[in-house]
Amino acid sequence: MGVTSSVLDVTTMRSRLDRLRRHASDAGVAATVVSPGSDLRYLTGIAGSSFERLTALVVPSDPAVPPVFVSPALEYAGLGHVPLADLGVEVRTWVDGEDPYALALGGVPGGRVAVSDMTPALHLLRLRDAGASDQQLAGPVLRELRMRKDAVELAELRAAGAAIDRVHARVGEWLRVGRTEAEVAADIAAAIFEEGHAAAEFVIVGSGPNGASPHHSVSDRVIEQGDVVVDIGGPLPSGYNSDSTRTYAVGAPREPDVATAYAALQAAQQASVESVRPGVTCQDVDRAGRDVLAEAGLAEHFIHRTGHGIGLDVHEEPYVIAGNDLPLEPGMTFSIEPGVYLAGRWGARIEDIVAVTDDGVERLNTRPTDLVVL
Amino acid sequence: MGVTSSVLDVTTMRSRLDRLRRHASDAGVAATVVSPGSDLRYLTGIAGSSFERLTALVVPSDPAVPPVFVSPALEYAGLGHVPLADLGVEVRTWVDGEDPYALALGGVPGGRVAVSDMTPALHLLRLRDAGASDQQLAGPVLRELRMRKDAVELAELRAAGAAIDRVHARVGEWLRVGRTEAEVAADIAAAIFEEGHAAAEFVIVGSGPNGASPHHSVSDRVIEQGDVVVDIGGPLPSGYNSDSTRTYAVGAPREPDVATAYAALQAAQQASVESVRPGVTCQDVDRAGRDVLAEAGLAEHFIHRTGHGIGLDVHEEPYVIAGNDLPLEPGMTFSIEPGVYLAGRWGARIEDIVAVTDDGVERLNTRPTDLVVL
Repeated sequence: MGVTSSVLDVTTMRSRLDRLRRHASDAGVAATVVSPGSDLRYLTGIAGSSFERLTALVVPSDPAVPPVFVSPALEYAGLGHVPLADLGVEVRTWVDGEDPYALALGGVPGGRVAVSDMTPALHLLRLRDAGASDQQLAGPVLRELRMRKDAVELAELRAAGAAIDRVHARVGEWLRVGRTEAEVAADIAAAIFEEGHAAAEFVIVGSGPNGASPHHSVSDRVIEQGDVVVDIGGPLPSGYNSDSTRTYAVGAPREPDVATAYAALQAAQQASVESVRPGVTCQDVDRAGRDVLAEAGLAEHFIHRTGHGIGLDVHEEPYVIAGNDLPLEPGMTFSIEPGVYLAGRWGARIEDIVAVTDDGVERLNTRPTDLVVL
Repeated sequence: MGVTSSVLDVTTMRSRLDRLRRHASDAGVAATVVSPGSDLRYLTGIAGSSFERLTALVVPSDPAVPPVFVSPALEYAGLGHVPLADLGVEVRTWVDGEDPYALALGGVPGGRVAVSDMTPALHLLRLRDAGASDQQLAGPVLRELRMRKDAVELAELRAAGAAIDRVHARVGEWLRVGRTEAEVAADIAAAIFEEGHAAAEFVIVGSGPNGASPHHSVSDRVIEQGDVVVDIGGPLPSGYNSDSTRTYAVGAPREPDVATAYAALQAAQQASVESVRPGVTCQDVDRAGRDVLAEAGLAEHFIHRTGHGIGLDVHEEPYVIAGNDLPLEPGMTFSIEPGVYLAGRWGARIEDIVAVTDDGVERLNTRPTDLVVL
């Protein structure tokens, strides 16, 4: 709690609250409960995660009833500069021993309640027991708001992309035979801060066979000659995230099949990027790159979706995956990150963030996609 | 998903599952649903967070019905070495397009379902809609298991404490007038990795007036002569966390009241530590230090609880707070972290992790608690 986005003005906040109320009302919802996390940050600028003490914004769909912000008194002390009063929000603080669930629901019209998707069971079931028993997910409504980025959000994501590009530009200083993945990750984590991030949220350094596991993080493996997948990112102070992957060859690729497979991967990533424009569906973008890998006989080695939306969450809508027939619209931002994984041997992935423009695509990461031979 | 704890053997896992079933049965629960996070890691060694795709362990209280582990097929590919079969757990993987909620509940006896506290609404409400509509929190049951650490867990927490102590021993290399908090945080983050952590989960560098806000993280403020609160920690590869705070004076304290207030703070922290032994309640430990600060006229400047439990979560039971009459037992581990905060001017905090032993207390952080004058 406490850090607030510098990119949110009161006019934007008010417009987002209005849209939330309108969408929620259309969905037959009497009130929406928003927990700490990216949904709350999107609406109010208030950052933080859900903990054991209830913090929540309760937004009645009836615009005549003021929203309620419930917060532990101690945490609210750090939020004095958030213009909740200007938004017509009524602040209700509580101290240990009081019942925050009754406090959250007091005066809120009864009926169906939508709760933000990441609200923990801890709070959801206590809200239920306090009377808000008719519950549904707020995700579909909030997704409608958050999926299309405005100009300020796009500028933040562009800055995040440039920041992580500067880190990738320096990775060659640290990747060397004989160092461990963890040692390299330490240098990268420091650079992620140095280049303007507020946290080094993930630092994947997957060397050799570890690169073949898309979920590998970092280990004490000593780097040998061969390939290393480096997938890094984190939030700027505003909360908007970077996420970019490049594959490095230390010394030179050791496995004989890297060159041809990497060429196909690069072509696949390019094909997916170039397929992006308004009206094209998410599954089309997935298909564009997947077809290139299939033609190269690598279909079975591309074992995950092509990408995920990105914004205040590293993973959010829209998901670039087979079966998602959502048509792209200007302002949508997502990763394009095909990979090839040869189990037990090596892996490679190329990941850039792109934004849908009025008539095509803007790349928010602009480093070359070539295999970086060090 | 995918990283597993190195500190868990099958015998320990089996015993934890047995205890979960027994406690859940006593609570009238037919099955417990455990989502990714520390609860799942505690039971199975499987690390990771909840995402949009359902991963869950469903444990019927009837020992004759096998537990079910539901996982996206892709993520399960990284979990092949987790001995779920040895635990009698039935693995059910799913791919996009299938209904994981029906899959999770198939064959599980009907009745009341307990869900782990941090399960997101996203999954909780879909489980409800799939038939598990009589839901309660699993927290009270899991807390009983997790609150008392066994010898292996204590060894991990001891190692985590030693690792973060080594980082604090180096902070003097980086804290200098003219550097920003963010620059110092970058060096500290790198050292947290270097000293054996798997992540630099939090790096608080609160200089001058920023030290007066317990929820400050890091900023572009340039460090001047005066006090800096450094609160740092993160998980070891095993998942067990460190968390320790020291206050540094760069140059020398600038504010005239630092010396006397710090002496009282140090005495307060010592008093709380020395009050720890089996049978003493959590609120007694809080009171011991709070009384010392009150006698020094600083009661109103100590604005938070004394501490929180620590283990696979940075914040977990038991909470060292007024009103908590839980008696301490051997194996409980928690922070003791009183602070004094002079709004807009300066702050100081001293934080160590302690473990309750058979007849007293063991400090898991062993650095001197003096103000470190650089």
